[in-house]
Amino acid sequence: MGMWIGRNRKARVTYGFDEIALVPGRVTINPNEVDIAFRLPRKETQPLEFKIPILASAMDGVVDVGFAVAMNKLGGLAVLNLEGVQTRYKNPQEVLQKVVDASKSEITALLQRIYQEPIQQDLIAARVRQIKDAGVIAAVSSIPQRAAEFGRIAQEAGADVFVVQSTVSTVRHISSEYKSLDLEKFCREMRIPVIVGNTVGYDVTLEIMECGPAAVLVGVGPGAACTSRGVLGLGVPQVTATVDCAAARDAYFKKTSRYVPIVTDGGMSRGGDVCKALACGADAVMVGSAFAKAHEAPGCGYHWGMATPHANLPRGTRIKVGSTGSLKQILFGPAEVDDGSQNLVGAITTCMGNVGARNIPEFQQTEIIIAPSIRTEGKLFQTVQNVGMGTS
Amino acid sequence: MGMWIGRNRKARVTYGFDEIALVPGRVTINPNEVDIAFRLPRKETQPLEFKIPILASAMDGVVDVGFAVAMNKLGGLAVLNLEGVQTRYKNPQEVLQKVVDASKSEITALLQRIYQEPIQQDLIAARVRQIKDAGVIAAVSSIPQRAAEFGRIAQEAGADVFVVQSTVSTVRHISSEYKSLDLEKFCREMRIPVIVGNTVGYDVTLEIMECGPAAVLVGVGPGAACTSRGVLGLGVPQVTATVDCAAARDAYFKKTSRYVPIVTDGGMSRGGDVCKALACGADAVMVGSAFAKAHEAPGCGYHWGMATPHANLPRGTRIKVGSTGSLKQILFGPAEVDDGSQNLVGAITTCMGNVGARNIPEFQQTEIIIAPSIRTEGKLFQTVQNVGMGTS
Amino acid sequence: MGMWIGRNRKARVTYGFDEIALVPGRVTINPNEVDIAFRLPRKETQPLEFKIPILASAMDGVVDVGFAVAMNKLGGLAVLNLEGVQTRYKNPQEVLQKVVDASKSEITALLQRIYQEPIQQDLIAARVRQIKDAGVIAAVSSIPQRAAEFGRIAQEAGADVFVVQSTVSTVRHISSEYKSLDLEKFCREMRIPVIVGNTVGYDVTLEIMECGPAAVLVGVGPGAACTSRGVLGLGVPQVTATVDCAAARDAYFKKTSRYVPIVTDGGMSRGGDVCKALACGADAVMVGSAFAKAHEAPGCGYHWGMATPHANLPRGTRIKVGSTGSLKQILFGPAEVDDGSQNLVGAITTCMGNVGARNIPEFQQTEIIIAPSIRTEGKLFQTVQNVGMGTS
Amino acid sequence: MGMWIGRNRKARVTYGFDEIALVPGRVTINPNEVDIAFRLPRKETQPLEFKIPILASAMDGVVDVGFAVAMNKLGGLAVLNLEGVQTRYKNPQEVLQKVVDASKSEITALLQRIYQEPIQQDLIAARVRQIKDAGVIAAVSSIPQRAAEFGRIAQEAGADVFVVQSTVSTVRHISSEYKSLDLEKFCREMRIPVIVGNTVGYDVTLEIMECGPAAVLVGVGPGAACTSRGVLGLGVPQVTATVDCAAARDAYFKKTSRYVPIVTDGGMSRGGDVCKALACGADAVMVGSAFAKAHEAPGCGYHWGMATPHANLPRGTRIKVGSTGSLKQILFGPAEVDDGSQNLVGAITTCMGNVGARNIPEFQQTEIIIAPSIRTEGKLFQTVQNVGMGTS
Repeated sequence: MGMWIGRNRKARVTYGFDEIALVPGRVTINPNEVDIAFRLPRKETQPLEFKIPILASAMDGVVDVGFAVAMNKLGGLAVLNLEGVQTRYKNPQEVLQKVVDASKSEITALLQRIYQEPIQQDLIAARVRQIKDAGVIAAVSSIPQRAAEFGRIAQEAGADVFVVQSTVSTVRHISSEYKSLDLEKFCREMRIPVIVGNTVGYDVTLEIMECGPAAVLVGVGPGAACTSRGVLGLGVPQVTATVDCAAARDAYFKKTSRYVPIVTDGGMSRGGDVCKALACGADAVMVGSAFAKAHEAPGCGYHWGMATPHANLPRGTRIKVGSTGSLKQILFGPAEVDDGSQNLVGAITTCMGNVGARNIPEFQQTEIIIAPSIRTEGKLFQTVQNVGMGTS
Repeated sequence: MGMWIGRNRKARVTYGFDEIALVPGRVTINPNEVDIAFRLPRKETQPLEFKIPILASAMDGVVDVGFAVAMNKLGGLAVLNLEGVQTRYKNPQEVLQKVVDASKSEITALLQRIYQEPIQQDLIAARVRQIKDAGVIAAVSSIPQRAAEFGRIAQEAGADVFVVQSTVSTVRHISSEYKSLDLEKFCREMRIPVIVGNTVGYDVTLEIMECGPAAVLVGVGPGAACTSRGVLGLGVPQVTATVDCAAARDAYFKKTSRYVPIVTDGGMSRGGDVCKALACGADAVMVGSAFAKAHEAPGCGYHWGMATPHANLPRGTRIKVGSTGSLKQILFGPAEVDDGSQNLVGAITTCMGNVGARNIPEFQQTEIIIAPSIRTEGKLFQTVQNVGMGTS
Repeated sequence: MGMWIGRNRKARVTYGFDEIALVPGRVTINPNEVDIAFRLPRKETQPLEFKIPILASAMDGVVDVGFAVAMNKLGGLAVLNLEGVQTRYKNPQEVLQKVVDASKSEITALLQRIYQEPIQQDLIAARVRQIKDAGVIAAVSSIPQRAAEFGRIAQEAGADVFVVQSTVSTVRHISSEYKSLDLEKFCREMRIPVIVGNTVGYDVTLEIMECGPAAVLVGVGPGAACTSRGVLGLGVPQVTATVDCAAARDAYFKKTSRYVPIVTDGGMSRGGDVCKALACGADAVMVGSAFAKAHEAPGCGYHWGMATPHANLPRGTRIKVGSTGSLKQILFGPAEVDDGSQNLVGAITTCMGNVGARNIPEFQQTEIIIAPSIRTEGKLFQTVQNVGMGTS
Repeated sequence: MGMWIGRNRKARVTYGFDEIALVPGRVTINPNEVDIAFRLPRKETQPLEFKIPILASAMDGVVDVGFAVAMNKLGGLAVLNLEGVQTRYKNPQEVLQKVVDASKSEITALLQRIYQEPIQQDLIAARVRQIKDAGVIAAVSSIPQRAAEFGRIAQEAGADVFVVQSTVSTVRHISSEYKSLDLEKFCREMRIPVIVGNTVGYDVTLEIMECGPAAVLVGVGPGAACTSRGVLGLGVPQVTATVDCAAARDAYFKKTSRYVPIVTDGGMSRGGDVCKALACGADAVMVGSAFAKAHEAPGCGYHWGMATPHANLPRGTRIKVGSTGSLKQILFGPAEVDDGSQNLVGAITTCMGNVGARNIPEFQQTEIIIAPSIRTEGKLFQTVQNVGMGTS
């Protein structure tokens, strides 16, 4: 396992979504009859059940209170970022408008300025309550350093799910400047389910699972607006990352009988990518740019990473994704575009029907092939004319 | 066989047309003296024999009655789709014109609308008779769910060949909403040869062959206007798909002494691709976009997939291929273009001459190499100037 | 050796120039002190010796009488095509001008028309004599079918070298329509050295060498103006082709003590490509498009393949290469361009100095690496700005 | 180790920066608490210590006296080329301006002319003294043929470091026209540390280390303005080159207990590339184009290679890199651009934090993966819109 990259040193070969394809099954199934539910474990009670295995990313161009409500009503779950404009500004509309209006040359500095405004703790509770007032599930997130404090506030305000998220999360973080989060203690003390990420790799995922999270987010740097992979050289392509973390989940389940779902986060812009993530072993996916295209998204067709506003080393950029349809269309169709970015749920069920998977666990067993030519074989006209697969 | 794509999981490496090349032979042959006939088995009678191993796809931009007649007169076979505009509209010309005239932003919705018009059963018989009236072979197609009904109508109207075709066909399709086609029963009861597809993979092909079809179509998603591979993440590149299905055919022949030809369908826009498909083991090829370029094609230089009009999850797009020559030129030359899209038959015979194959079975034994650089080595000027191989 | 491309079928992995690089040596040498002479064996006399291991292709945009004279005076050898405009037209200037003036859409038909003019046998002898009158070596070529006749005429007119050339040459060509060339008899009866090509592959090269040629041309389809690889799907990338044929040469030498040089023909537009061909085992290279750029070239900055004018299945295209410098500059510099297309000889000697090769046989032993990233690593600005390696 | 590229011949597979990625660690560290110092050994005294492991290339668009002073004050080291415009012209400003003003078609000839002006020996000493007058470390360079002479002058003028640099340096250089540098003698006789390069490969690096240099430069042809890889076909991608030379360093250290740092030179335009070089085993990196972007750089946003002005065979080109920020910003941020070209030091420390490396030796042990998809997975919008990773 591994190729020589030079004297005395080997490296594993890893794969991304564009390099693989799924193989049709020996049995096929009517797509209307497959089960795609996602279940998030809770302590001492029934799991939270979602009709569709899709989460929306905790990013400011994607999720605000209104989007979170709409997403949950449609069967999925959107995560509101507690460190974005929603908790820094009482009325975030106007700063969002500035982001939309800024030119390419202004945008990095503008974002740096906008995110220097301090987080207002009362807004944390307020945003949670606004979501809960609509009668839906509320999920919110922060980085590890603030999780202890923000987690407590959010839980008290009625949040149902808390997400601890950073570019790279580990159980062991070394710092003498500040106190690292004790992840095991945090998961133990929170009453609501804690989702932890992001991570890649078998060993780290096992260590995190041993701390007791309800689920783990998989993916370092694949996001459409993220530049960590260029700026830091860091990351593992999502196919290999998902397969590795799924193996950790299965090993952990075998040892403890506790099933900790993994959620592949980032790098999926079309239905085909979502299908591949699930087939690689994900229990659900977290999607950002695809939802930034929704009419309901606060970014009005723009999308940016949460590391973009970093004061000193921005690791993201603002991209224009366009506002192409309603959230309902993006999830369930009817698709009005030909690039696979609408009707993500239809893509999942149709693909499951074609590979003969009745549910997500069966879908996770789909035969995968390495098939880089799948993107281009026969597609010259689409590429040249910028239609269909030529647009993605 | 297979590479590790992550912990505990392997994937086969698969290949598409652009990644391989054919190796010149130790013996060469005068191209005028090679035999390229294709024979489609029939029950209790001699096989249908075609002078050239090329079929035209059952797509609305390619085949109407006139095209079917012209194609068969030139030695090949065109399949008319019984679920397209030809059987939904008495005078399909005007809807075809609308497809041609629509802008990029209108086209998906327009196609969805056009294909909501119900199929008129009397038009099925009428189209078959129109073809038969010209004294040629009539081949028509439908999806599995409608095959029992449409197959009967077509056969009674005088059709010579029936094609059962869907994105992914298997023998075992599970549904409680509708009754699945009993493929074995259908093949047994039809008097005319039944071609079944599409499929990829050794095992599925064997299972399908055991149901008694006259031939099998190979290919999931390679079509020039198809986007299944992007929308669903599904498919196997055509080189591997053809090699696998050829192995199934040979194994089935060894066991039963019945030779069920395989027809590689999709992904071939130039003569070189057609040659590669045959060298990979195909007995014939089915071509769409290359024929959509014919003056005789009803799409007037436009081409779209039959899954494009899907109401909820379109899996295709409309492409412009141009109207570049007569069908005769596309098949036999003289080629007036330099991109390999004209004189497909000349390409086959010339290539066979160069690899030293006297007939298709010998051509199927050609040495293949993995040679991705074959497309670009030395071709900088063609690429930059958009001529020759730079156009494809 | 070989990868599975599908069930029961393996294919070798082959390489082209852009996928490899040469490794610097442990010893380096002053480039002025390396020996790059090329020797072409003759019967019963000393070999023809050329100061530089570079031949110019028998193509109408490259070689006419004037070019042949200039090339030989500079130490190389240019081959005049006996089936091109030089022997079809007494004054080829005006048809060459038409080729230069034609638009993209007219060019294929125009070339087909121009090459329908019959070859005038008296012009064959005349062209040979014109070259000889300048006191230089005369090399001319034809396809196998005409070699017996044209070879005799050329030899009588004083030609020094005869080249038998076709897309794919083998010893055994099967035809009942015409009599194939008996290559062994032809080589035996000709008094002047016969170069035979083109070929790829160990076995065919051995068979050809056993017929007695003075040298063998290696390469099927790499030419800058050739489209055989797209139109027919045929060919072997030049690195593998050259390595294989060099192995045949060495095996034949071991068996017979007769050294038959191989000349890699096609696919080399820059000095780096020429260096790679020699390092792969070539004794010399044959170059077309790089010389079409010379002020002395009859194509005035345009270049086309000899299979382009084929009446029914053209397998080439016309490309514009520009007229960038004198032949002397292209061979010896000073280079005025930054893309490696000038001072080919300086590139060879400098590279040999850096890898520590004192002569071509040592250069043929250079360590080769598979290094596709060599073209792009660090070269972003060159690519974007279309300078240096970004132009090639 | 190695793949067959043809009969009887194998080649190693080698890797460049774009083909690999770094894997996040099981432990993470606060980036503010990692140690990135670089130490250059000196004879009989303490090593020169630099706060940051980054050198600026001896190129005329990057380093003049002012730049060298600024770079060293910020903790790094810039090398002044003794064979560039700084020692050929008393007032190089005006020739630099000409380079900036020249058009694409004029530039090669202009550079050839500018560098024909002879080197003035008094300027060598003058430039060294100007740097020393600012109270910082002075590093200067020449090619091997002039090292004996220029090294002596520079050392007497007070230089602290001497760099012997050529495209490919070896211990054994064969020439009868001139006397080769005796590298062992030169290193022995110089009192100040001698850095030698460039080289690739385990064996050559060992031979060079045995001559006694203080450090070795690694890299043949990766430079942003260099075209050697195209013009000569020569070079080894930087990942493999660095891993191989690091293995030589470690082997040499094991044998002699003398640690000779290696400095990867060229091919790194973004922070991620620098991180990869260090993770591959480099002790420091040498960067050109990234610093040519500094306001302090003499090239005013233009950059060219030192082999570009070669009279006969230029092996470089002039590129425009733009003038994007102060040297301090490029090294330490705050980054105002989103492409990873600013805050290189922040990228190193952040990456080290994420992989859990406390210092460079630990960073050199980072797990590397082969991950070509890392550049594109999920990045479609960045590519299309030319932002973030889409600009590099």
